[in-house]
Amino acid sequence: MEKQLQIAVIGLGGHGIGLLDLVLYRMKDIRVCAVCDIDASRVEHAQKLAKKWRCQTPKGYSDYREVLREPGLDAVVISAAWSVHTEIATASMRAGIPVASEVGGAYSLEECWELVHCYEETGTPYMMLENCCYGEYELAVLNMVREGIFGDVVHCNGGYKHDLRSEVAFGDENGHYRLHEYMTRNCENYPTHEIGPIAKVLRLNYGNRMVSLTSTASCSKGLERYIADRKQKYPALEKLKDVQFAQGDVVTTVIRCANGETITIQLDTTLPRMYSRGFEVHGTKAMYAEDGNIFVDDRKNHKHEGVKMSGKKMVKKYRHPIWKWFKRFGVKGGHGGMDWLVFCAFFEAVRKGDGHMPIDVYDAASWMAITALSAQSIVNNSACVEFPDFTSGKWKTRKQEGQGRFFLE
Amino acid sequence: MEKQLQIAVIGLGGHGIGLLDLVLYRMKDIRVCAVCDIDASRVEHAQKLAKKWRCQTPKGYSDYREVLREPGLDAVVISAAWSVHTEIATASMRAGIPVASEVGGAYSLEECWELVHCYEETGTPYMMLENCCYGEYELAVLNMVREGIFGDVVHCNGGYKHDLRSEVAFGDENGHYRLHEYMTRNCENYPTHEIGPIAKVLRLNYGNRMVSLTSTASCSKGLERYIADRKQKYPALEKLKDVQFAQGDVVTTVIRCANGETITIQLDTTLPRMYSRGFEVHGTKAMYAEDGNIFVDDRKNHKHEGVKMSGKKMVKKYRHPIWKWFKRFGVKGGHGGMDWLVFCAFFEAVRKGDGHMPIDVYDAASWMAITALSAQSIVNNSACVEFPDFTSGKWKTRKQEGQGRFFLE
Repeated sequence: MEKQLQIAVIGLGGHGIGLLDLVLYRMKDIRVCAVCDIDASRVEHAQKLAKKWRCQTPKGYSDYREVLREPGLDAVVISAAWSVHTEIATASMRAGIPVASEVGGAYSLEECWELVHCYEETGTPYMMLENCCYGEYELAVLNMVREGIFGDVVHCNGGYKHDLRSEVAFGDENGHYRLHEYMTRNCENYPTHEIGPIAKVLRLNYGNRMVSLTSTASCSKGLERYIADRKQKYPALEKLKDVQFAQGDVVTTVIRCANGETITIQLDTTLPRMYSRGFEVHGTKAMYAEDGNIFVDDRKNHKHEGVKMSGKKMVKKYRHPIWKWFKRFGVKGGHGGMDWLVFCAFFEAVRKGDGHMPIDVYDAASWMAITALSAQSIVNNSACVEFPDFTSGKWKTRKQEGQGRFFLE
Repeated sequence: MEKQLQIAVIGLGGHGIGLLDLVLYRMKDIRVCAVCDIDASRVEHAQKLAKKWRCQTPKGYSDYREVLREPGLDAVVISAAWSVHTEIATASMRAGIPVASEVGGAYSLEECWELVHCYEETGTPYMMLENCCYGEYELAVLNMVREGIFGDVVHCNGGYKHDLRSEVAFGDENGHYRLHEYMTRNCENYPTHEIGPIAKVLRLNYGNRMVSLTSTASCSKGLERYIADRKQKYPALEKLKDVQFAQGDVVTTVIRCANGETITIQLDTTLPRMYSRGFEVHGTKAMYAEDGNIFVDDRKNHKHEGVKMSGKKMVKKYRHPIWKWFKRFGVKGGHGGMDWLVFCAFFEAVRKGDGHMPIDVYDAASWMAITALSAQSIVNNSACVEFPDFTSGKWKTRKQEGQGRFFLE
């Protein structure tokens, strides 16, 4: 076994605890030597979990700046509130400690530039932990795209279609920040699960980039209805009964890419629904649909003939090398194994130490920027707004330079 | 049986012939007394079909203006090329003959206004034959919406997702006009199948209306690939090998409504794919998804619980009264029965003679306008463009006034 990496985890809300419980404490080549949260009870909880997993108890902190002074730290993982990701990530980069940040949208374009500039000044590796890039279906589709089965991809759909009404309405009680977000902002607030896998398919920031978007938000009625229907049974909701939510129930964002492809993503988190990431890939030779089915053109006859294949059959036939390895290794961790893989990717890159990351600062900045740009578009009557070029022209010739099992070529 | 209606059919391409064969010649209370096309062989074919169905042979015409002088005509049906719908419809209204027009997008806003003004001047009833408004699933969903099962509907999706590559590429040989359209225009060229059922759900033009849209088109690669792959086997395609198509493969259009709802529609006709109308309805209490499944919130517990129901079960449980009647009557006609129903709707309204139509000139004008507006938006970098108010303010208080079995309340 390779030398254990010493890591710190900052932010121990539901997601941070889940990562410790399902992933980090179980990785034999990782040692969580520090955990940090402004809430002492969460720190204690994280320390207790270590016992359950027979790990050495990590040191507890309430201030992330102290964590960064911990000697011998190989990497930092940020799973705090969206609003402090950039502050902690830049502090970590300035301290020279490779950093992985959980996903979230940006509050402003300045925040995205801050990440990029800090990375360019310090050279400290930064990765965004976009687990959906490592989904089994997403990777099978990527594999097929690279094998040429889709021909030229011209359009992708994606979505974060997840009923979060209880998380938002009851979040306040658990110290979660979503309630405040939904009361004060109206935007595509969670774009990276959708855009991540699509960005890899379309090689965004590697010979392609997003150039502009429009965003349109529906009215906001889902949470009000949810609260009205349940406030008698749940007195905690009583105080929310007159709240006007700013966040539209469904936000549709349409993105144009430098090479002519388009992307449509939908945020849909405050209405009753089945979960879906709405991932679709449309190419000149094949399509992959939200329902998991794939259709491959026969390319011979003039009529609309082709081969329809179920998603199940597809993932078997076109399993990505990462998932072939994962199946042999034994699928582990949260969210169907994606969490495990995204950490494997980060730690592999940290060990290599050549500075390359499979989801790097330019990816993070441009994906997170969707939130800030969508807010601008919505407030300006769905006006078309342009993406900054965070790579300052490098996207035209950039290649994915890092190498390893978990790089997404 | 009621007195037979005397009708004329203008435009005898594939669709017009299909309507005669599957619907009009089979309706016992209808007599097709005239058929018209600029192509004499099509007229002859339509006349021969009459024999097959033991109908009296209709008179044949090449000039629609002569048809309109035919004495005793109760109604005209237009199934000609998109580009001449408005010219023939307005001529028919001016001749005082109720007219039903097949679907299609508008080439300009002026064309939409022309329809509206002509109707307002003449008072002659006009109906758009949007068959998808009468689809079994679409009507079951409408029924549920009216029963309040969706709560407030805040967003709808729709699409015309239909692989038309062979129709476009080989269309020229059959005298079809699509090839020219795809070579010269870039727009949401066929919006009414998508917007029709959604318009009924959202009561557009009856207390609500579409106020603005953005449209974004992907690059155009599907037809080129199709032709390149098949030109050796099909020499007819050789002449198209260097054609640059103007029409983007996927066009995403996002519409805002006066009451705050949003609508997303996608045109996707030049890539390999399974057929779908992409119909989705998202409300505060339930959703209907493209895959035909429905999810109804439980409205009691705080977690994401609810009832998932297959589309099959839904149409059985919530069958619309029109389809209850149709099942008893015996489902007939093309496109799963929708064609039959839309003609029943038109002829019922013609017989009543009170001037009201279930899909009237204001519906037609605003739905067709999507094509012209999307072309504007696309050419202006996805700029947000406003819908004219074709009702001149009447939408605020308009009610569906006509009554009958086939009106969509």
